[in-house]
Amino acid sequence: MIKIGIVGGTGYTGVELLRILAAHPHAELTAITSRKEDGMPVAEMFPSLRGFVSLAFSAPEKTPLHECDVVFFATPHGVAMAQARELLAAGVKVIDLAADFRLKDTAEFEQWYGMPHSCPDLLAEAVYGLPEINRAAIQSARIIGLPGCYPTSMQLGFAPVLAQKKSLVNESALIADCKSGVSGAGRKAEVHALLAEASDNFKAYGVKGHRHLPETVQGLQAIAGRKIGLTFVPHLVPMIRGIHSTLYATILPEARDIDFQSLYEDYYRDSIFVDVLPAGSHPETRSVRGSNMLRIAVHRPAGSDQLVILVVEDNLVKGAAGQGVQCMNIMFNLDESTGLRQVPVMP
Amino acid sequence: MIKIGIVGGTGYTGVELLRILAAHPHAELTAITSRKEDGMPVAEMFPSLRGFVSLAFSAPEKTPLHECDVVFFATPHGVAMAQARELLAAGVKVIDLAADFRLKDTAEFEQWYGMPHSCPDLLAEAVYGLPEINRAAIQSARIIGLPGCYPTSMQLGFAPVLAQKKSLVNESALIADCKSGVSGAGRKAEVHALLAEASDNFKAYGVKGHRHLPETVQGLQAIAGRKIGLTFVPHLVPMIRGIHSTLYATILPEARDIDFQSLYEDYYRDSIFVDVLPAGSHPETRSVRGSNMLRIAVHRPAGSDQLVILVVEDNLVKGAAGQGVQCMNIMFNLDESTGLRQVPVMP
Amino acid sequence: MIKIGIVGGTGYTGVELLRILAAHPHAELTAITSRKEDGMPVAEMFPSLRGFVSLAFSAPEKTPLHECDVVFFATPHGVAMAQARELLAAGVKVIDLAADFRLKDTAEFEQWYGMPHSCPDLLAEAVYGLPEINRAAIQSARIIGLPGCYPTSMQLGFAPVLAQKKSLVNESALIADCKSGVSGAGRKAEVHALLAEASDNFKAYGVKGHRHLPETVQGLQAIAGRKIGLTFVPHLVPMIRGIHSTLYATILPEARDIDFQSLYEDYYRDSIFVDVLPAGSHPETRSVRGSNMLRIAVHRPAGSDQLVILVVEDNLVKGAAGQGVQCMNIMFNLDESTGLRQVPVMP
Amino acid sequence: MIKIGIVGGTGYTGVELLRILAAHPHAELTAITSRKEDGMPVAEMFPSLRGFVSLAFSAPEKTPLHECDVVFFATPHGVAMAQARELLAAGVKVIDLAADFRLKDTAEFEQWYGMPHSCPDLLAEAVYGLPEINRAAIQSARIIGLPGCYPTSMQLGFAPVLAQKKSLVNESALIADCKSGVSGAGRKAEVHALLAEASDNFKAYGVKGHRHLPETVQGLQAIAGRKIGLTFVPHLVPMIRGIHSTLYATILPEARDIDFQSLYEDYYRDSIFVDVLPAGSHPETRSVRGSNMLRIAVHRPAGSDQLVILVVEDNLVKGAAGQGVQCMNIMFNLDESTGLRQVPVMP
Repeated sequence: MIKIGIVGGTGYTGVELLRILAAHPHAELTAITSRKEDGMPVAEMFPSLRGFVSLAFSAPEKTPLHECDVVFFATPHGVAMAQARELLAAGVKVIDLAADFRLKDTAEFEQWYGMPHSCPDLLAEAVYGLPEINRAAIQSARIIGLPGCYPTSMQLGFAPVLAQKKSLVNESALIADCKSGVSGAGRKAEVHALLAEASDNFKAYGVKGHRHLPETVQGLQAIAGRKIGLTFVPHLVPMIRGIHSTLYATILPEARDIDFQSLYEDYYRDSIFVDVLPAGSHPETRSVRGSNMLRIAVHRPAGSDQLVILVVEDNLVKGAAGQGVQCMNIMFNLDESTGLRQVPVMP
Repeated sequence: MIKIGIVGGTGYTGVELLRILAAHPHAELTAITSRKEDGMPVAEMFPSLRGFVSLAFSAPEKTPLHECDVVFFATPHGVAMAQARELLAAGVKVIDLAADFRLKDTAEFEQWYGMPHSCPDLLAEAVYGLPEINRAAIQSARIIGLPGCYPTSMQLGFAPVLAQKKSLVNESALIADCKSGVSGAGRKAEVHALLAEASDNFKAYGVKGHRHLPETVQGLQAIAGRKIGLTFVPHLVPMIRGIHSTLYATILPEARDIDFQSLYEDYYRDSIFVDVLPAGSHPETRSVRGSNMLRIAVHRPAGSDQLVILVVEDNLVKGAAGQGVQCMNIMFNLDESTGLRQVPVMP
Repeated sequence: MIKIGIVGGTGYTGVELLRILAAHPHAELTAITSRKEDGMPVAEMFPSLRGFVSLAFSAPEKTPLHECDVVFFATPHGVAMAQARELLAAGVKVIDLAADFRLKDTAEFEQWYGMPHSCPDLLAEAVYGLPEINRAAIQSARIIGLPGCYPTSMQLGFAPVLAQKKSLVNESALIADCKSGVSGAGRKAEVHALLAEASDNFKAYGVKGHRHLPETVQGLQAIAGRKIGLTFVPHLVPMIRGIHSTLYATILPEARDIDFQSLYEDYYRDSIFVDVLPAGSHPETRSVRGSNMLRIAVHRPAGSDQLVILVVEDNLVKGAAGQGVQCMNIMFNLDESTGLRQVPVMP
Repeated sequence: MIKIGIVGGTGYTGVELLRILAAHPHAELTAITSRKEDGMPVAEMFPSLRGFVSLAFSAPEKTPLHECDVVFFATPHGVAMAQARELLAAGVKVIDLAADFRLKDTAEFEQWYGMPHSCPDLLAEAVYGLPEINRAAIQSARIIGLPGCYPTSMQLGFAPVLAQKKSLVNESALIADCKSGVSGAGRKAEVHALLAEASDNFKAYGVKGHRHLPETVQGLQAIAGRKIGLTFVPHLVPMIRGIHSTLYATILPEARDIDFQSLYEDYYRDSIFVDVLPAGSHPETRSVRGSNMLRIAVHRPAGSDQLVILVVEDNLVKGAAGQGVQCMNIMFNLDESTGLRQVPVMP
């Protein structure tokens, strides 16, 4: 059994980790910290876990995280980098669901997250936890920086096109029009996320700039091995879970005869959690609700050179907790899908 | 034109007052206070009001509320009673949307609201602003304590039965199973009211005791002229606006032959904002969305002595701001429906 | 492996059976019929099942259901009773999710469902599939009539009180104020169930009479061994899944000192899928979303003799497909919870 | 008073026309047809209209539409063109909310709508009812073909850029990523529009081709006086009302110094129903709920040549019924905003 610690289990990614790990056949939930909720049984705060999780939250200083095999950080940005060194020294692997180990450029990190990076050496060592792209590196990693929810969908959506030797699309003018359910904003008391504000409503936000932009550009450039340019516009959908990214790329004249459907199917042939739908499909976010699956459909509207890629994922699973467990499985040489075979809940 | 001031216009009842008063032919919005938003144009915070409201919020101490004809308090409990005396002295009428002037018994007020009442004399003078019951008293009132949203639906739902000389139902065991949209909780940043928490979900709350219970009991006893007993169970519905109260009363043997449908139609014949639906109807909350109308249906399930009354209202209009304007119209000798003829928005 | 056939798998209870059975360790999905969708892969109609279900729908006449060990009917009322005799003769067990085998009185069946009952002998043999009440009978049954979604919540909610030798409450005036998500209406194209009609809205329906009333009365009387009287008012909640039943019963003077909390805890001590919450709790429907759990809270508002019981379930799981699988497990001598340990999806 | 007839008043655009016209100071609702609902009072089908509309539906053959001043067609495609000639001959003006008089090219009409056009001469005469673009032509028109809901938002969103003498953006590769509430699909019983299907879900549809594409291309080309190329991807949002269009255009090198914010403000200076928000804004659909306002925000993400235009409208008002009344006001020489000053309902 893998002994697991969770730092910061009171948010949505934390409770989602608990939901998945509670049913994982090789996971032993050992400790879960929360300074504020010290002593409170997890299942008292989250009654959905009654009968599945018997742990109580404990204050960090009382919690022997160094006895775990792996510690997940489901915390605000900045927490994982403060505690990672000590855990690593104790032989504990670290998987961070926040942004501390995503951006390789510390200057960029500081610009977007408003704090200095406290351990650039660990950052250099950290592996970006996108298994479909980085499987080998994840297997031997000690520290994982898990991708953000939007970046997962954008990178897996654009990857098959960008990973080709020669450019197939105008890579300097990619567009990602992304839509997310409100759980993406976290379990924080904020007026704009109230049901009375966000329900029966739709809006864009962060058009000027969003933290997931530099992360995605970094990832796409790593995939392409070339510079890319991306316009990213996130929107808020009045639903709980789910991200739908609509991606646009202009096909270059020399690539007009490419069969993009096959290109995508081939690229993801061995990726158990990426499902390329039949040509002409329109994936729905509910088709992945509660599951680690990401579904993609490839479109090319009649007579145009515009490639339109539709991507759906559950932002809390493939976009966060599930992807974390997928990385853990790889790091501990388990089958990649262990504990991640939940059938999506529909309707 | 009636010069109008609003204290505390940043919550849902405040912005609803603005929506209604902006189109009221005899209202002149003169001042709206908010310490926190001093200087911010109202329409910047609430873009739906762009083109309709040109006022800016102003800090209370800068705001000449004493020059108004009437001041609405759309504030937390406790604010109106601190400012009412001065306004009244200046000849300004006061309409409080909070609870300061609802409960006649100061001990009860202190028990449920956790603060002493600072002006029992004004409380004694204040009129409970339920026009269908208290129209005459409202007309000559200087201070109005507006009913809560739930109490409005419960009192208007039970009134025709209780207002009879002889008891028709078992008045000691009335039941009100009430369901409210989340705007009833106000525009406050609280985790339980997030879309990700409250959407696709349903629950009861406050079964042990809710502040609207003593207010409703007081009101029902005033209507009946007799003691009554009420069990009140509020529930949270994943919708923005609307209250649906399902009321139960056991018909007494001697009242079995009463035609309750007629009783209700007669009782509300002259009430423009209460609509008794044809027998067999099931009112929907959306049928009053955005309007001051309250609709009632009277049922008596086959073969039983159970009276089932269905009541719907928009909690922000008939349950708050609209009822406030209705009182204002009466106090200023306008037609009761002035500025309140909005057609409900459906779908 | 248990060979399983499903008749009528295109509705919500059918697809929910598929979701559960696809992950059931002892279930082998063998056949699923649909005349209209003959030949269509199940996962093409329901992409959430891609990778989990490889079956295609087949027309009934082509489908060797008699080779199954058990056949589930997720069909409109009237289908199961037409096919049950032949299946039983072939040694196949039958579990009906519709109403054909619920009401023991054929006259009552005909009155509420508008069709004659075609096999009263099988009806007499059929067992009402509520495991918490009928576990022993289910174990040896050949035909199960599964309870409706509302009746499950009402019966399990009232059972501990009614199952006592002496009446504890006024059993002639029970009230059930029930609220259901719209999936309870099935996957049928009807205007009133459109998102644009049912969203941001709340209403009661069927106050005059609902098919689940006679079924519940029959069940409660069987539990009590006495006549009972019930007023049942169903309501439609703008959410997908979930039922919340608020149950009212007047405590008799001689039962005032009963500890109802203990009574409930004791009654359900051995029921793995009924969770009696700590005193003072308010169960939420989302706390059971996607799971077979039913949660109950027992309230007694201060100073009153009114017992208020709050019950939540997922109408498609404990209220339908999950309960069917629970019965199947019992009938095939498996652990009752086999394949039913899904952790509720929250948020 | 303008005598008004409505053909087909049982859909969402029909009932929205009724909501608006019931409060229009110069409108006299004279007749409303529905073959199926002949004799049924409008307010019985739509209780929200109780007290505002006393008309009953009447079968077309009984209805003296030729006595009206103007007839609105809120019907399926194909109905208006069958009845327009006779009405025009009787001196009645015709405003069609469906597609019969939108596409000027009859071959294109037949391709997208699957029926021949029965009166090409009237089509040639018909004016496209987009007041901000065609005000003068509308004033003297006898027949109006009202724009679709999506096309209204796309055309008003792109117009200021395209209406310039010299191209400012790459007009051959415009992108419109549009999101609509489900009322856009009409009040039709279809499975995919059920709350249980469409709620807590998000998807694209019609990527291969949507009827609003040729209409929008025709309109944009008329505005530009040049050929344009458009990729249009519609999406379904789990909300009732509202369209949010996110429009993308690549700024040409020679236009890099243009102040697009001013360009938009200038272009719409005299358009009472188009509100250009301050730079940096993110319009929300709820900010126009129930109103005829359309709001636009102009963005240019840092360092890029991508113009991002955000547009919101209420699809049933500015996208349909409200725009129809706006056209009517212009045709009858009323102030353009008569009866259209509803304050948006928020929250």
